[in-house]
Amino acid sequence: MSLTRVQQAEIDAQRRETAATRRVVASGLEERLYEAVPVLDHGFVRAIDYMGDDAAIVQAARVSYGRGTKAARDDRGLIRYLMRHWHSTPFEMCEIKLHVKLPIFVARQWIRHRTANVNEISARYSILDREIYVPAPEHLAAQSVANRQGRGAVLEGAEAERALAILRDDSTRAYGHYEELLNERDGAPIDPERTGLARELARMNLTLNTYTQWYWKTDLHNLLHFLRLRADAHAQYEIRVYADAIAALTQAWVPLAYEAFEDYRLNAAHISGPALEVVRRMLIGEQVTAETSGLSAGEWRELSTVLQTTASGRAE
Amino acid sequence: MSLTRVQQAEIDAQRRETAATRRVVASGLEERLYEAVPVLDHGFVRAIDYMGDDAAIVQAARVSYGRGTKAARDDRGLIRYLMRHWHSTPFEMCEIKLHVKLPIFVARQWIRHRTANVNEISARYSILDREIYVPAPEHLAAQSVANRQGRGAVLEGAEAERALAILRDDSTRAYGHYEELLNERDGAPIDPERTGLARELARMNLTLNTYTQWYWKTDLHNLLHFLRLRADAHAQYEIRVYADAIAALTQAWVPLAYEAFEDYRLNAAHISGPALEVVRRMLIGEQVTAETSGLSAGEWRELSTVLQTTASGRAE
Amino acid sequence: MSLTRVQQAEIDAQRRETAATRRVVASGLEERLYEAVPVLDHGFVRAIDYMGDDAAIVQAARVSYGRGTKAARDDRGLIRYLMRHWHSTPFEMCEIKLHVKLPIFVARQWIRHRTANVNEISARYSILDREIYVPAPEHLAAQSVANRQGRGAVLEGAEAERALAILRDDSTRAYGHYEELLNERDGAPIDPERTGLARELARMNLTLNTYTQWYWKTDLHNLLHFLRLRADAHAQYEIRVYADAIAALTQAWVPLAYEAFEDYRLNAAHISGPALEVVRRMLIGEQVTAETSGLSAGEWRELSTVLQTTASGRAE
Amino acid sequence: MSLTRVQQAEIDAQRRETAATRRVVASGLEERLYEAVPVLDHGFVRAIDYMGDDAAIVQAARVSYGRGTKAARDDRGLIRYLMRHWHSTPFEMCEIKLHVKLPIFVARQWIRHRTANVNEISARYSILDREIYVPAPEHLAAQSVANRQGRGAVLEGAEAERALAILRDDSTRAYGHYEELLNERDGAPIDPERTGLARELARMNLTLNTYTQWYWKTDLHNLLHFLRLRADAHAQYEIRVYADAIAALTQAWVPLAYEAFEDYRLNAAHISGPALEVVRRMLIGEQVTAETSGLSAGEWRELSTVLQTTASGRAE
Repeated sequence: MSLTRVQQAEIDAQRRETAATRRVVASGLEERLYEAVPVLDHGFVRAIDYMGDDAAIVQAARVSYGRGTKAARDDRGLIRYLMRHWHSTPFEMCEIKLHVKLPIFVARQWIRHRTANVNEISARYSILDREIYVPAPEHLAAQSVANRQGRGAVLEGAEAERALAILRDDSTRAYGHYEELLNERDGAPIDPERTGLARELARMNLTLNTYTQWYWKTDLHNLLHFLRLRADAHAQYEIRVYADAIAALTQAWVPLAYEAFEDYRLNAAHISGPALEVVRRMLIGEQVTAETSGLSAGEWRELSTVLQTTASGRAE
Repeated sequence: MSLTRVQQAEIDAQRRETAATRRVVASGLEERLYEAVPVLDHGFVRAIDYMGDDAAIVQAARVSYGRGTKAARDDRGLIRYLMRHWHSTPFEMCEIKLHVKLPIFVARQWIRHRTANVNEISARYSILDREIYVPAPEHLAAQSVANRQGRGAVLEGAEAERALAILRDDSTRAYGHYEELLNERDGAPIDPERTGLARELARMNLTLNTYTQWYWKTDLHNLLHFLRLRADAHAQYEIRVYADAIAALTQAWVPLAYEAFEDYRLNAAHISGPALEVVRRMLIGEQVTAETSGLSAGEWRELSTVLQTTASGRAE
Repeated sequence: MSLTRVQQAEIDAQRRETAATRRVVASGLEERLYEAVPVLDHGFVRAIDYMGDDAAIVQAARVSYGRGTKAARDDRGLIRYLMRHWHSTPFEMCEIKLHVKLPIFVARQWIRHRTANVNEISARYSILDREIYVPAPEHLAAQSVANRQGRGAVLEGAEAERALAILRDDSTRAYGHYEELLNERDGAPIDPERTGLARELARMNLTLNTYTQWYWKTDLHNLLHFLRLRADAHAQYEIRVYADAIAALTQAWVPLAYEAFEDYRLNAAHISGPALEVVRRMLIGEQVTAETSGLSAGEWRELSTVLQTTASGRAE
Repeated sequence: MSLTRVQQAEIDAQRRETAATRRVVASGLEERLYEAVPVLDHGFVRAIDYMGDDAAIVQAARVSYGRGTKAARDDRGLIRYLMRHWHSTPFEMCEIKLHVKLPIFVARQWIRHRTANVNEISARYSILDREIYVPAPEHLAAQSVANRQGRGAVLEGAEAERALAILRDDSTRAYGHYEELLNERDGAPIDPERTGLARELARMNLTLNTYTQWYWKTDLHNLLHFLRLRADAHAQYEIRVYADAIAALTQAWVPLAYEAFEDYRLNAAHISGPALEVVRRMLIGEQVTAETSGLSAGEWRELSTVLQTTASGRAE
């Protein structure tokens, strides 16, 4: 992570300040507010602000006048019920605002989640920092042969070195030329005689692993949906680590909702009608095989993974 | 307004509690948090929670690390610039949550604003309160003859009395029958022998002036859009009074953004290309009339209102 | 259903007209275009327009230049893959526009689906038709005792008669008074001496079973989400019948997508992490009971229903 | 523009096919369907599908049963009324689907318009084409000195040559290395012994002027909003040319709505409350100057531009 001394001082200053509020306070998240959680080689996630806590979910579901006098045990039960039955609107009553530094190619995946508010640093107005993502050697994976969108084994030896050299050199050269095009380095003109290309044009010379930053704000329902897709094993590693960092903040913020999310989403499985039929046959003792299941090869494989059974339908 | 003693006690209890927070605090809105602002005969608006303040708009626009050290004067200038140039995303970084009690026919207009989170009390689960809107005599307006969607003169005498009697009697009878259908009054069965019609069916007997309640949460950009449409003179009186109450809370919350909103939205005018041409002709001294303007009658009338000129194009 | 002769003639005229288009044509839905499918006692659903077909889903997923030369068998496989893996954006590339006549209390549930475009007939400008929903006797259900939001046994005898009489009388009286307030009946003033109350006020005297109408337009992904929630057994009967009518139109429009939707959504089950653990234990031969399952009573009941096993965890 | 022979043949084949439909047909847009309109050096815009026409806006606004029997003159009047009074929902009843090839840095601006459906070609699955945007010399503008986000004079001579060389070389080298990382060129392995880096990683080596493609679908209301912002003189040239191409297609599709859009949006001005006060003073003959106007320097300049008056408030 690369915070300048000034940036870290600004963060520390803001962490020291407290004020009195009548609003509900989520003490677990207060603890971590503003702190930069490092992600990848230069990125971070910071929680900047939030609205609501576990009790606010319950309060909205009941459209209540006060905090309510119900026991915490009842809150947990209701939150689990709401999660299990896909009642999403009470979860929308909590909101969080994050400051994220992330590579542009990750930002392009992230932005597909449309139900969020975003303020990205503009490379039409500003000059992007000289910060570029280069994978750690253990994440330099080959293309999967089995899966068109997956990763295979980690590259090694000369091949790995060559790949890292390319990624490092091309982005460094591109960034250096970006500065030359702008005719600006460290806040000063390189050549006082030149004007420099317009910022909105010069930026096109940057590579997709250059870091950008944004403020990103969303409600808890949409945040959990984001986590379900992006903390998933099928998500690209480079976005998954952001999702993991945000998941930890979410757990600190709304522990009951997060627990329900783990049980009813993260660790849950969606089983199709035909696959359910197979499970029912297995439960009455039938030996179901890939062939007799009637499922496609892909679906049979996915079902076996979920049930942790062998290919013959018998548990290992 | 009709808060029960228990409800008012819950509100008071919540207003007394404060806690320390690291988040930004908007002192003007803290002052009014949870308080029920009366609207119409039984309705109210209560601010339940908020995220951000004027400085948070600036902070998001700059994607900054801390609160920033800029002077408040610069904040005001930037907020006005953002509002004038329709940069909406920084305003989306502030969020507010309201608890509203409102007649169903008002709720039906309100819900058309889709970019908001809503938890409405469900008449499938719960029994709606016996609270019904009946207009004050001074708001009992006749249908406008000029304007298909407008109100004309206030009804008076026997006609007004008859209208009020109908509104009062039909809704009261409908509500009484609603209880009879449910076989429940004041939380107890009316006739212990009967089951009562399903709540989800019985509710259809209610009239559209019955009050409902919801938690409504939106960001500042969408809130201001709501206020622009609903605090407008063309909006129906019964929703305008809610918009007015919310406008006052908004002003307490983000005074700089609200001031910019007044100048660049509420008191501004959108002037069409052809109408601008007319203004330009007037400014070089031409006497433009409805006939020579080339505008439709409606647009000419609207332009004259905006410019506060007489029909001949000369100022009064 | 209550179409006037003029309305039916307009529909027939539009059905007779055809024109040449270069766009993709979904012949199954063309067949039913504009036709009013009756729902409830006076309601209907009409497909007014559509964009795309099954092949358009595939074409968008592949971002292709033409219709593609792939076999229909491949299209089916890809559509099933997309549905199974929650790739929603290709389904968003199809769009449908419906004209719906529905009771106001149904419209209030429906409108919670925010990702849609809606044009509702405005009771500020127009006078609503004298059409009121009264349940058929077999749908006049008692409140469920077990389930706060459910229906129990059907009311019978005097109790049913009383309920129907109330629903019929109150809404009829309210509608009659609505006309009196407006001072307008069948397009003419009732009393030429009076002005009549403003339409925007008079409407509040109507009961929630009065019919309204709207044009409703949404994409296929959001339509299927709507169907999943509203064609479900837990949805209120009065909205479920609309969902059923729309499901039939959807099947005619995009038969492959609809088949995948049935397998992977309608007939599928979402099984929580703890419940999956129970299934795994059952599959290796353990006799799991409600007590030893570790699930809540509600979740155990739901799992048993899905697996079609008895309470003891043994298949029936 | 760079369509392969195969792609052009697919487009031609689809343009030749027509079928009968009962849907409304917009003949102006039918004419141009599927055709690739060239934009920038390798980009294009193609209209793939649409729903509705001018009459459909009117039909939705009236919630009508048929096409209606009103004269076209009335349709134009109603459409202009709806546009003038910001009644957006009838315009949402028309939908268009485009296929766009565009540089990544343009795609990143475009995607901020959230109310649209998007299917972008995935560089996790697929290999992006070797197509890179390099500005034409006349668009190689210097950074504006006056305006932090604007362009100044066009670069010339050696400076221009150097800038073009950098943009060309860096992107070409980055693309070549992208292929080397993938170990794939023209669909075949470069070195049959190597696996190649995962596609999802290799893509990060590309520069932001590499072209991507997507299917983009939106409703007419949101399309016009996009055009208002992106066809504007303040938008970056590289996105404005796309907006211009789409504007021409929109005019062919819904000529009446487009005409209203020009009058009430494109050529209109939004004048703030304080600026309106200045106009009113001018109209009664007062000589208003920047100093006596009470406006900020920026706002005074903007008002003068709109009114086409000199700085002294007198028309030129």
